[in-house]
Amino acid sequence: MYDGVVQDLIDELGRLPGVGPKSAQRIAFHLLQADPVDVRRLADVLVEVKTKVKFCSICFNVTEEDQCRICRDPRRDPAVLCVVEEYKDVVAIERTREFRGRYHVLGGAISPIDGIGPDQLHIRELMMRLADGTVTEVILATDPNLEGEATATYLTRMLVQPDLRVTRLASGLPVGGDLEYADEVTLGRAFAGRRAAR
Amino acid sequence: MYDGVVQDLIDELGRLPGVGPKSAQRIAFHLLQADPVDVRRLADVLVEVKTKVKFCSICFNVTEEDQCRICRDPRRDPAVLCVVEEYKDVVAIERTREFRGRYHVLGGAISPIDGIGPDQLHIRELMMRLADGTVTEVILATDPNLEGEATATYLTRMLVQPDLRVTRLASGLPVGGDLEYADEVTLGRAFAGRRAAR
Repeated sequence: MYDGVVQDLIDELGRLPGVGPKSAQRIAFHLLQADPVDVRRLADVLVEVKTKVKFCSICFNVTEEDQCRICRDPRRDPAVLCVVEEYKDVVAIERTREFRGRYHVLGGAISPIDGIGPDQLHIRELMMRLADGTVTEVILATDPNLEGEATATYLTRMLVQPDLRVTRLASGLPVGGDLEYADEVTLGRAFAGRRAAR
Repeated sequence: MYDGVVQDLIDELGRLPGVGPKSAQRIAFHLLQADPVDVRRLADVLVEVKTKVKFCSICFNVTEEDQCRICRDPRRDPAVLCVVEEYKDVVAIERTREFRGRYHVLGGAISPIDGIGPDQLHIRELMMRLADGTVTEVILATDPNLEGEATATYLTRMLVQPDLRVTRLASGLPVGGDLEYADEVTLGRAFAGRRAAR
């Protein structure tokens, strides 16, 4: 529809997640008029991110070093391991400042429909980390959806070492939400997981 | 919130129009996991678009040559000139296949609130193009909004050459729309511009 390289740019932008043809066009026209220095900076950071960013050799978190910031931090409790699906889950949990242990990033969740089984995830590496007995609790913090639950169930069945506590994050009503708007599964979980109030 | 270059990428993506912090994060994580070849291609086309794409020396349309495809085309009628705000308006009009004349891209519309006056637009160049009398009709195809109308009004006042026809695009009901949903200004214009049915 457009000429040469402008159409190439629109095509490439349209491949990004959440960017439809109209947005791609809008971004492309913005870039046509933008300062070349700004566009160059975006291009550079794209290349940089693919050359610099690696995965931590211990936990598979995103890092620019061999080991990630959390694995290198001696103040983090090596006895508690939080298993998550993705790097962004690490960031979400870090933001709470509630967790002082370490992580293991699976790289996804079991999803037969997408062809992702246990072998496609960093589960073997998780087992190797647990072998020396340093870790005494594994917190399964996979997403509370079908794939995340399947992954947690699978891991629960695999993690049979004696003296290893395996826990799940609590399910229940989101803080700040309205009870009447909660879906029935969440509300059911909130009942099942009710705590003594005093 | 994120480490080093990943945060840089999220920041750069977040500067694009219509890309909020959540979308920027989502695109960044997609790129982290994407094939390096694909990311490299996006980076290359960004650089390419800023080095290759220029503005036509005659009409200020986007082009990779000195003159744009339309200005170079001898079959396009040099007597009719369509004045638009942006390159994307050229593309929109070309798509209709209704117009066989040439264009003049102003590079925006008069908008005092954004500091854009007649001097920031390619109006002087428009006047120079009209000087030799080749053009017999100027079609003002600016956007039907406040800035576009102001620009058209300004140009109408400037284009006082005798024997020069100055026209505006018709305002009225959009084809395929419902009369009851038309806003009152559009409906008023549709009445004012009514044509003989037979």
